[in-house]
Amino acid sequence: MTEAEPQAVLRLRERLETIAALFVAHPAGTLPVAAQAALRAQLADLHPADIAFILEALPLDERLAAWQLVKAGDDGDILLEVSDAVRESLIADMDHHEILAAAESLDADELADLVDDLPSAMLPELMAGLDTQQRAQLQSALSYEDDQLGALMDFEMVTIREDVSLEVVLRYLRRFAELPAQTDKLFVVNQDNLLTGVLPLHWLLVNPPERMVSAVMAPDVNTFHPDDDAYEAAQAFERYDLVTAPVVDATGHLIGRITIDAMVDVIREQSESEVLSRGGLREEEDIFASVWKSLRNRWAWLAINLMTAFIASRVISVFEGSIRELVALAALMPIVAGIGGNSGNQTITMIVRGLALKQISIASARRLWRKELVVALLNGVAWGGVIGLAAWWLYDSWALGLVMAAAMALNLLLAAFCGVGIPMLMTRFGRDPAIGSSVLITAMTDSGGFFIFLGLATVFLV
Amino acid sequence: MTEAEPQAVLRLRERLETIAALFVAHPAGTLPVAAQAALRAQLADLHPADIAFILEALPLDERLAAWQLVKAGDDGDILLEVSDAVRESLIADMDHHEILAAAESLDADELADLVDDLPSAMLPELMAGLDTQQRAQLQSALSYEDDQLGALMDFEMVTIREDVSLEVVLRYLRRFAELPAQTDKLFVVNQDNLLTGVLPLHWLLVNPPERMVSAVMAPDVNTFHPDDDAYEAAQAFERYDLVTAPVVDATGHLIGRITIDAMVDVIREQSESEVLSRGGLREEEDIFASVWKSLRNRWAWLAINLMTAFIASRVISVFEGSIRELVALAALMPIVAGIGGNSGNQTITMIVRGLALKQISIASARRLWRKELVVALLNGVAWGGVIGLAAWWLYDSWALGLVMAAAMALNLLLAAFCGVGIPMLMTRFGRDPAIGSSVLITAMTDSGGFFIFLGLATVFLV
Repeated sequence: MTEAEPQAVLRLRERLETIAALFVAHPAGTLPVAAQAALRAQLADLHPADIAFILEALPLDERLAAWQLVKAGDDGDILLEVSDAVRESLIADMDHHEILAAAESLDADELADLVDDLPSAMLPELMAGLDTQQRAQLQSALSYEDDQLGALMDFEMVTIREDVSLEVVLRYLRRFAELPAQTDKLFVVNQDNLLTGVLPLHWLLVNPPERMVSAVMAPDVNTFHPDDDAYEAAQAFERYDLVTAPVVDATGHLIGRITIDAMVDVIREQSESEVLSRGGLREEEDIFASVWKSLRNRWAWLAINLMTAFIASRVISVFEGSIRELVALAALMPIVAGIGGNSGNQTITMIVRGLALKQISIASARRLWRKELVVALLNGVAWGGVIGLAAWWLYDSWALGLVMAAAMALNLLLAAFCGVGIPMLMTRFGRDPAIGSSVLITAMTDSGGFFIFLGLATVFLV
Repeated sequence: MTEAEPQAVLRLRERLETIAALFVAHPAGTLPVAAQAALRAQLADLHPADIAFILEALPLDERLAAWQLVKAGDDGDILLEVSDAVRESLIADMDHHEILAAAESLDADELADLVDDLPSAMLPELMAGLDTQQRAQLQSALSYEDDQLGALMDFEMVTIREDVSLEVVLRYLRRFAELPAQTDKLFVVNQDNLLTGVLPLHWLLVNPPERMVSAVMAPDVNTFHPDDDAYEAAQAFERYDLVTAPVVDATGHLIGRITIDAMVDVIREQSESEVLSRGGLREEEDIFASVWKSLRNRWAWLAINLMTAFIASRVISVFEGSIRELVALAALMPIVAGIGGNSGNQTITMIVRGLALKQISIASARRLWRKELVVALLNGVAWGGVIGLAAWWLYDSWALGLVMAAAMALNLLLAAFCGVGIPMLMTRFGRDPAIGSSVLITAMTDSGGFFIFLGLATVFLV
């Protein structure tokens, strides 16, 4: 690899190593005062996101020792940045007052992201600490599902009227101490708070100050609704290179905005949930999670896997008589099952992707099926031929080779059929095909492969 | 699912359906003049990214028929937006002059993204059409690897001096017809073009115009180098919520900038390459790729899978004598192998993630190994116990049940050991552990599982 590490990354990793070295010298729990001061100093000048990174990279006991030394004012921001699993471990270590103090530094929309992980008994107290507007915002954010934009929007934004000049807007902006993060456009509303357009900062800057907002603004904008699907909105952000976009209610009133950083999280989480599901994990895991938490995160997929493996095992046992007579079958059968699983997963990966991007319609389904079946047939003939010849050579039986080749081709056809069918069916029933379809296809091609191969062998060889 | 579709997505999908319906009425190749006009009208008012989306969702013949009707001026932008596989299919359909015309509308950095897919004989002609500065930029971009920032940076940006007032900057900006896309900050350079700081547009807007740039700008910024790793830079963008960042050479001269939209692509591609590799695909595939192209994309992983399955099969054949005597072994052995594979993939998924985020150090490796081995042991005892009891009950042999349980536990330990070790080893040797490690671990747990189970059975049962 010839790629260098960006300075920011390098600096952060060196900081992590310095901190880790502190703990190596002083096993956690017994950090002497001097080392504590050194650690505090290492953490003091870091961005909250960097502290979050370091906390995630430290084993649990060291993480909590470091967490105690973080500046109290940063607590809230850091909790927002860490992964869900790590957040849980940090909050479990905070007392009532620390949690309240951390929550106080946050906006309503940020608080909404944390609430799920806080002790539910604290919600009334948190609510009481907010003003009326913030409370309404928090309640609004909590009323949406995690994958709806309403749960991700923020409420800080700059609105202007269309019947003023750019000069007036420029003067108005100078009254702000700072603009909300990521602001790349101002939202133009009328007196009823109906969104009538947006004014990109760029246009504010390049146009003569005497021009009116109404003459410069873009009336037709990418607006979203709070019940919109977050992943689809993220795709729109990607497609149109958006940085922020307004969120309006059903009647067109401006209620919030969406920023690119929230959308980047959505994009990452969507791909990650597919990676996790294919890896057999239920959710993202703190790499230093306790053994008990790891077991809990992993047992569900292991149990499903055990069940499908058990079914495959029962399929084999039906043919025990044939295997006893021709024991080569036992050695050859995993090949048929394995290649079927691999080929089925190839098909399913593509179809899941096309479905997520909404590029597969019912009209194209038939065409895809035909194509995948042709690919499977050709693969089946080619690889089936290779492995059939190998079986013939190894066991000196052309009939066994023929059965092997035929079983491979048939199992690949089954894999192609299910590889297109399973994700389509899951989508039809409103489930996310990215999660679990890989296990399903492997179950089909395992049991199916054993059945096809041993069945053919029983009919033609035994 | 209660999530609604964002309007932008809905509109686009309806457009796609309208266009698909046109083709259903008139099978491609024979689109009458009236239908052609209708199709042209449907495409005319779309954003290039939307046209790219529609082209990707159309089968090859329809895609090319639509491509012929796209406004010539949009060609270049659309080629930038489509996936690599689809871009190939579009370029193959363009003649020399069309390609030149499309290239003319692009900047040097955009052209660099296309060059790989263009007929290489055209490069001299393309170069000749550029002015000296653009030619130098194109050559610079081409001199970096795809995963280095140098290949992704763009050269359009606004630079200012630090010894002027904000008022001067505001007047300067009004001389632009428009600012480069995504501009959220101006780059402050001295007369030698050394970067001395950045001026966020926000600060330009909220500060009094009489203040000097030097008094307002941020001197310490996130700068990158052209040979920096793109994925790590993308992580920095995510961590610090950046929209753009300057790229400087080794001596600190400003040479370009990186924008968030390029980083979003990098984030998506990184996760996607892991999904594709786990699915057994070499690269992203055009869902309507020809059968021949699909075969080419898939054969490599199938071949590897065939080889590992063949090895596992040879392991089994060593124990054919035992299987003949105790045929239950044939039915039970896939369970041991399957659970080992699932468990190993769980471990590897987590480790690969920790490595990609740079959160795993050599110091923590030993700790992770210990933890994963404990998790594996507990899982092995629990699930091994369950399946051991099932085996005992099914085959009425407590000894078989014991062997089964022991083999499960041992294979899970092997899976945990390799699950931590394989990605660490791949990283040590400079390879990306996200690609291929899942196949490796499955190969280990298959052959290993068969060997452990059949070996134990041969020693204790036969």
